[in-house]
Amino acid sequence: MPHTNGLTNELPNPYLKNLDNDVLYHLGFSKKDDLKKLFGDVKFVCTGGSADRMREFAYFIYSKLKGKLPVEDEIKDLGGVGHRYALYKVGPVISVSHGMGFGSIGILLHEMIKLVRYAECDDPIFIRVGTCGGIGIPPGTVVVTEGALNGVLKGVHEFIILGKRVERPATFDQALAQKIQECALPADNFKIVLGKTIGTDDFYEGQGRTDGAICDHKIEEKMEFLQKVFKLGVRNFEMEAPVFGALTHHAGIKGAIICASLVNRLNGDQITATREEMHDWGLRAQEITWRFIEKTLKDMALIS
Amino acid sequence: MPHTNGLTNELPNPYLKNLDNDVLYHLGFSKKDDLKKLFGDVKFVCTGGSADRMREFAYFIYSKLKGKLPVEDEIKDLGGVGHRYALYKVGPVISVSHGMGFGSIGILLHEMIKLVRYAECDDPIFIRVGTCGGIGIPPGTVVVTEGALNGVLKGVHEFIILGKRVERPATFDQALAQKIQECALPADNFKIVLGKTIGTDDFYEGQGRTDGAICDHKIEEKMEFLQKVFKLGVRNFEMEAPVFGALTHHAGIKGAIICASLVNRLNGDQITATREEMHDWGLRAQEITWRFIEKTLKDMALIS
Repeated sequence: MPHTNGLTNELPNPYLKNLDNDVLYHLGFSKKDDLKKLFGDVKFVCTGGSADRMREFAYFIYSKLKGKLPVEDEIKDLGGVGHRYALYKVGPVISVSHGMGFGSIGILLHEMIKLVRYAECDDPIFIRVGTCGGIGIPPGTVVVTEGALNGVLKGVHEFIILGKRVERPATFDQALAQKIQECALPADNFKIVLGKTIGTDDFYEGQGRTDGAICDHKIEEKMEFLQKVFKLGVRNFEMEAPVFGALTHHAGIKGAIICASLVNRLNGDQITATREEMHDWGLRAQEITWRFIEKTLKDMALIS
Repeated sequence: MPHTNGLTNELPNPYLKNLDNDVLYHLGFSKKDDLKKLFGDVKFVCTGGSADRMREFAYFIYSKLKGKLPVEDEIKDLGGVGHRYALYKVGPVISVSHGMGFGSIGILLHEMIKLVRYAECDDPIFIRVGTCGGIGIPPGTVVVTEGALNGVLKGVHEFIILGKRVERPATFDQALAQKIQECALPADNFKIVLGKTIGTDDFYEGQGRTDGAICDHKIEEKMEFLQKVFKLGVRNFEMEAPVFGALTHHAGIKGAIICASLVNRLNGDQITATREEMHDWGLRAQEITWRFIEKTLKDMALIS
């Protein structure tokens, strides 16, 4: 059951109240830290795969916010002690890496959801700012996820609790996705599209690639599958959407995914773009994320 | 089908032969690099979750091998350009991080399997040197995986290819696991046990913890499950064993998992050991791995 009916700021776990302390082991914080003082003003939790990119994103947000809001000049990695995720805070924006795949982002989300609740953040928005493989769209296109499908094309995150399979709806806020897509500008030299996202737990066989170390399926079967999902409105593959949608929705937190596509899978599996091209395309997702943050802060009259 | 019948050095993917180049995108190498020159002498691919720990492991192996084998004094991160994994090479040993969970280690394994095959390494052994949650064993115990189970307690890695569920046996070499366990010394102040390992794709709900942001199950149900799996011979939980066993076995590569346990889940979910304790326990898994490497190199008459 999603906890969105007046339960904001409550965690959907009755056992947490009984804990003496709560160690957010992978983030390197605990409830005994003054989380409200450290993070109470956070409005956006932005997360992406690599530590490098999220450090870059923190500096980018700093360059935009400086002079408009009180932001600390020193941008330091607060996640260091956990040795698992890089975490930066720039005014109301957290920039934190999530690694790759369901397992890695799942741990981060459990601990970040607890962190924003313990810190009593006011209606924080979680945004995954990532990269993806596009389906039927040119590399460099930015895809905003309007719905997530798992590998068997169901709109849920399926996982296992105590030996039993559980499905949780992987739900995204449509108005939020729409508002992000509207951040497109006529002068942009790239497109922003709304689309369904398939999140898999494997980059190679799980996304139908035929260039992994192992491949037991045929290229023709892959092409048939890609054409089929394109017709269903799928525009990209990545490795986090279902668990991201499921955990944020279940915890009553609005979430969005903004991804730059690095390859058009209808044309091939290998990512052959140069590092520079991929970096520039990644910046497009960051730019759209900033435009959304700016618009939201303006709507809240926090910046002019 | 496992490819172990005279197919060593062949990859179980017929399409790779037709590729002009093969970009190992997340590792930052391609087939056009002289992989044989760079990595042809590799005999052990050691991998663990965090980049920090695998850098430390590289320095540890360097301290042991220096003077016995030609090893370069400069230990540099060769995985840097991919921005995803940290990768070091010390003589015949690769030390590479795998992040957390099936998705992250799966990408690494696909690319590392291709790398050792392209480099024509001679029968390389893959070892995961990690941390885990123990079941019914004191924190600090080292567990050598004799078999991997997925979340529904089946000895397979289940994943999805082109919309269909696939199961692949998660098989570990019993003689190898035994040989590693025999690296215990009477003077050790910790135990090494052989045991079954449950690999889940979630640290919190997936391992039955009741301290995640979300918990829909009961403590009593968790305890019942933990007691049940202990009776089945399970000694630890982690997040990589099924995919590690499945991919290495399918590619005809011997694999082993050596993990230090950080908590006894029969006593609670939270990891409350100090950073120093956890670090020291992690070193135990590294020490056992070194003893095994040393014994193997001696058996091969490569060191005396």
